[in-house]
Amino acid sequence: MASIFTKIIAGDIPSHKVYEDENYYAFLDIFPVQKGHTLIVPKKEVDDMFDLDDETLAGLYVAAKKVSKAIKAVFPCNRVGHAVIGLEVPHAHMHLIPINGMSDMNFEHKLKLDNEELAEIASKIREQL
Amino acid sequence: MASIFTKIIAGDIPSHKVYEDENYYAFLDIFPVQKGHTLIVPKKEVDDMFDLDDETLAGLYVAAKKVSKAIKAVFPCNRVGHAVIGLEVPHAHMHLIPINGMSDMNFEHKLKLDNEELAEIASKIREQL
Repeated sequence: MASIFTKIIAGDIPSHKVYEDENYYAFLDIFPVQKGHTLIVPKKEVDDMFDLDDETLAGLYVAAKKVSKAIKAVFPCNRVGHAVIGLEVPHAHMHLIPINGMSDMNFEHKLKLDNEELAEIASKIREQL
Repeated sequence: MASIFTKIIAGDIPSHKVYEDENYYAFLDIFPVQKGHTLIVPKKEVDDMFDLDDETLAGLYVAAKKVSKAIKAVFPCNRVGHAVIGLEVPHAHMHLIPINGMSDMNFEHKLKLDNEELAEIASKIREQL
């Protein structure tokens, strides 16, 4: 069965998309730990990121850099921290999170943003890409 | 001034090395959150990982995959989670951590391992590489 992310990529489930190319898709996490928290995923559905072939894995990091620069332009920060944990959804995904301190990347602290605010954030990030 | 990681790479500060090639260096975190917790760094000293040129950034992820497979062979786990936060040391580094659940990647929970045990772990990971 297609993962929820594959359905998002196919457009069967709506998302606040910020970036897409042939191999990767990036969209806002709807349970963000910071404003601008984005997920970037390979379109190829693998559970473990390190099961990607080298080329697709390498390309993901370059795409993540591009998206991170756009996030940082909208949400000025010390840096865009990134993490792959991925035990909730069996489709590898990298979290991109603007941070100023260690505690800004605490996955137990979630913001509540409504759909309109998320749409506005996604639009601002897209403008930088 | 050279970062602590540059001094480690140069051999001026000892480390439990697990992997090295022309561009990257990987060694055990001496404050691990799990056994096998490894840091991989680009030899090029940049503060923010996303300031690396695309080629060096992409290559780091491929080297990280190689090292992660070795970690997983020694410490069987659901996957090797990875994160770049990097606010403590101004030399970009990726944490590679064998995990079975979200809470296994909690940076506030550190293990105390003595030097002998770390040396043994590093040796076992190196054997897989």
